[in-house]
Amino acid sequence: MKRIALTLEFDGGPYMGLQRQAHGPSVQQAVEEAIAAILGEMPVMHAAGRTDAGVHALAMPVHVEISRDMTAFRLMEAMNARLRMAGHPIAAIAAREVADDWHARFSCLGRRYLYRIVNRRAPLALQPGRAWLCKHPLDAEAMHRAAQALVGHHDFTTFRSVHCQAASPMKTLDRLDVARVETAFGPEIHITTAARSFLHHQVRSMVGALSFVGLGRWGEAQVGEALAERRRGALPLNAPAEGLYFAGARYPGWEDGEG
Amino acid sequence: MKRIALTLEFDGGPYMGLQRQAHGPSVQQAVEEAIAAILGEMPVMHAAGRTDAGVHALAMPVHVEISRDMTAFRLMEAMNARLRMAGHPIAAIAAREVADDWHARFSCLGRRYLYRIVNRRAPLALQPGRAWLCKHPLDAEAMHRAAQALVGHHDFTTFRSVHCQAASPMKTLDRLDVARVETAFGPEIHITTAARSFLHHQVRSMVGALSFVGLGRWGEAQVGEALAERRRGALPLNAPAEGLYFAGARYPGWEDGEG
Repeated sequence: MKRIALTLEFDGGPYMGLQRQAHGPSVQQAVEEAIAAILGEMPVMHAAGRTDAGVHALAMPVHVEISRDMTAFRLMEAMNARLRMAGHPIAAIAAREVADDWHARFSCLGRRYLYRIVNRRAPLALQPGRAWLCKHPLDAEAMHRAAQALVGHHDFTTFRSVHCQAASPMKTLDRLDVARVETAFGPEIHITTAARSFLHHQVRSMVGALSFVGLGRWGEAQVGEALAERRRGALPLNAPAEGLYFAGARYPGWEDGEG
Repeated sequence: MKRIALTLEFDGGPYMGLQRQAHGPSVQQAVEEAIAAILGEMPVMHAAGRTDAGVHALAMPVHVEISRDMTAFRLMEAMNARLRMAGHPIAAIAAREVADDWHARFSCLGRRYLYRIVNRRAPLALQPGRAWLCKHPLDAEAMHRAAQALVGHHDFTTFRSVHCQAASPMKTLDRLDVARVETAFGPEIHITTAARSFLHHQVRSMVGALSFVGLGRWGEAQVGEALAERRRGALPLNAPAEGLYFAGARYPGWEDGEG
């Protein structure tokens, strides 16, 4: 058997989530079926993260095991062609053969997310479904200051979905930065965050709380206070899935940005 | 009568072009019909530029005259709601009342375009139709050096469509820059250019020639030599419309970037 790591870019819009679902399309099903059509054997895909319905990926490492003698590059090319023919907005942007004990989820040292906000009144003509459209003015600097209360090792119960399956709510957030940036599509607010791992809905919960600070409905200190409450009900809302991107993952021996 | 300037963002994919066409949808038709539905009178839209089928806009100034006493802001809001309901990927991102002699086309002092290239093998999962996917490695630095032969006042006959209606092929190119940039969607090559005005297909012709330099199929000097030939047949290809964005326009008294 040969283990192949693939780095996926995908539009989460058409999918119920990354993982296979009983009712509805998933990224996993699309990838596994594309590979099955090429190899004549159904692989099982494992991923660095388990993104929700509507969440996108810029660089999601996954792996599969195959019994055929095919190079990682050829598998990627054939898979991309299949996915494209089938109309799936999923593409592998990198591929490599990895060791038998390398695991997209369990070998992962760190995960990064990007959350994009377009802060204007006009609908998104060029990138519908690719960012959160916030119509009221946000104070990105206040959001950044408030965010720093979440960086470090904390009990993130407040920022955890009721469906979260993690054994512990303790996580170490390495960074949570909020900045106004110029993009090819105009000005945006980007929220970038990194940690070894995240709880279910943690990023969208954090962005939701920060948006309340940005709107002036919460004082900057309230984010840290909500964290200390360790109570899900302390939060105003989850930011919508469409602004969230799984941005990359780190592995032993991989260059930064390779994931 | 009241003259309203609107700055449009649009996805050019579904349209035959900006201007009204006998056969097929246009940005102009969509905007005029949205305003007609609001005001009960059919306006005529004039635009800073006349973009081709499939060409996008980040910021295209246009103007209309209306007889109703409605503020520019309210017209923009109502128009955006109508366009959205009708499924048009067009939105006004700014609006203002202008003087009776202000004209989106004739008052314009300068126009900017952005051309986006994604230089990789994988299909564009997150932004299909929003950039030119070039599968072979491009040397962006060589493209930039070669581009400088086109900056300045020249006879651009080589870079002009046979359908171009301009009286003269003489144009002054203020800048033509090629650079690798990091975007929210990953690395891209951006070509930015500015001039008082452009000939029909000029930007796509220039990008097509530069791509030949980037691939190593042309030497850097060949771009300037093709210009000197003043012969359309000297060019290899037009770059595809999907990578091209009308990026903005300058007017007397407008701040930079307001267009």
